[in-house]
Amino acid sequence: MKRIVLLRHGESTWNKENRFTGWTDVDLTEKGIADAHKAGELMKEEGFHFDKAYTSFLKRAVKTLNCVLDKMDLDWIPIEKSWRLNEKHYGSLQGLNKSETASKYGEEQVLIWRRSFDVAPHALEESDSRNPIREPRYKKVPDCDLPRTESLKDTIERILPYWKCIIFPTLTTEDELLVVAHGNSLRGIIKYLKNIPDEEIVHLNLPTAVPYVFEFDDKLNLKNDYFLGDPEEIKKLMEAVANQGKKK
Amino acid sequence: MKRIVLLRHGESTWNKENRFTGWTDVDLTEKGIADAHKAGELMKEEGFHFDKAYTSFLKRAVKTLNCVLDKMDLDWIPIEKSWRLNEKHYGSLQGLNKSETASKYGEEQVLIWRRSFDVAPHALEESDSRNPIREPRYKKVPDCDLPRTESLKDTIERILPYWKCIIFPTLTTEDELLVVAHGNSLRGIIKYLKNIPDEEIVHLNLPTAVPYVFEFDDKLNLKNDYFLGDPEEIKKLMEAVANQGKKK
Repeated sequence: MKRIVLLRHGESTWNKENRFTGWTDVDLTEKGIADAHKAGELMKEEGFHFDKAYTSFLKRAVKTLNCVLDKMDLDWIPIEKSWRLNEKHYGSLQGLNKSETASKYGEEQVLIWRRSFDVAPHALEESDSRNPIREPRYKKVPDCDLPRTESLKDTIERILPYWKCIIFPTLTTEDELLVVAHGNSLRGIIKYLKNIPDEEIVHLNLPTAVPYVFEFDDKLNLKNDYFLGDPEEIKKLMEAVANQGKKK
Repeated sequence: MKRIVLLRHGESTWNKENRFTGWTDVDLTEKGIADAHKAGELMKEEGFHFDKAYTSFLKRAVKTLNCVLDKMDLDWIPIEKSWRLNEKHYGSLQGLNKSETASKYGEEQVLIWRRSFDVAPHALEESDSRNPIREPRYKKVPDCDLPRTESLKDTIERILPYWKCIIFPTLTTEDELLVVAHGNSLRGIIKYLKNIPDEEIVHLNLPTAVPYVFEFDDKLNLKNDYFLGDPEEIKKLMEAVANQGKKK
């Protein structure tokens, strides 16, 4: 049996402030670090021993991965980082508080921006300081590939080539892989793996720092998938994520 | 101008206990983490912006690197880990206290084991639980390449191919590289770069967590090398390392 675990990063400072983060490189909170350690301990107890790990270019994911690997005594395994695993780009909403945005534009519009499949928020102006073209970390990415905003559909379209060409084929030579990324980038992978329709994937609320295990047979057919941990606790965490876009 | 910075990991639990560590995978102390953060802050202040980083398979080096990159907001850069950057393998001495070993075998013998160029400590027995062949992390290394003990000469011979084939050529396409490793593995690189004779390299006592900068011209000739930080403080740190093998 081969396994891939998907893990959403621990709580970030902007999760806590309930702001649209996207590609903004915010840090983990103390709780986020504790979340990550807990996930690492859980996977160690359950006997996981990853051969390789993947993460995004954003520090809340990289640091979650580092915390997990340290708790598992796997600091030494190879890590590959890619901008393609970044969170959905939230365009000009990046930095705005979700409750404030709901008061201004209405809950319905916020829900469309957060949860519609193919509607993207307003794009960043080229001159905007938040434009990723201005950041050294993306200098090796072709300009035409760098988003100024994204719908979930756009996010999935940029993440799937990386899943198909880089992550998944590695399972032919390795037994266990770990992917630490973001709510929406992981939605893309889950949608593809489980063949979830467009209108349903938007309702999947992935809890932070809860390992989501996918098991494959020797021909790499998906056989089973489940969250690691207490089902009641996981349900509460998923509901908390779903409620973030509501007015306070 | 191109630059490579060599950095020895921060204080580990066995540095503190003054034990022969070698390939034993001991953790950083709180001071070691603080050392690493300080090194990161210093390099950020001095305007370093690494394109890629290299480290060993040992967590004291990996975690030092992670701390440094986080302080520099460079969590996203690619990292490559290799067993070839590991510390010198101390054979059957691994785990023994340096002062106790000095009392038992004499300071002179300990100095030979620690600081001779081509004398290796007694090798681990094949059946020894410390034999690296038993560790999953080395399963992709050919058995004949895995040491059971090493002299400094042996350490240098296994590190130089990695320097020559992997690290140094990367400077043709990148401007700044960081290598976080160990006292003896870094000695090997420094010996090669500065053409230091066998009998002199053993007296180079690299302080922990002090960035050692090497500057190259466009043809990749070495032009300059210097430690980053306060010279008086660095001198004291180097003397402290030199005195570790003495009886208490």
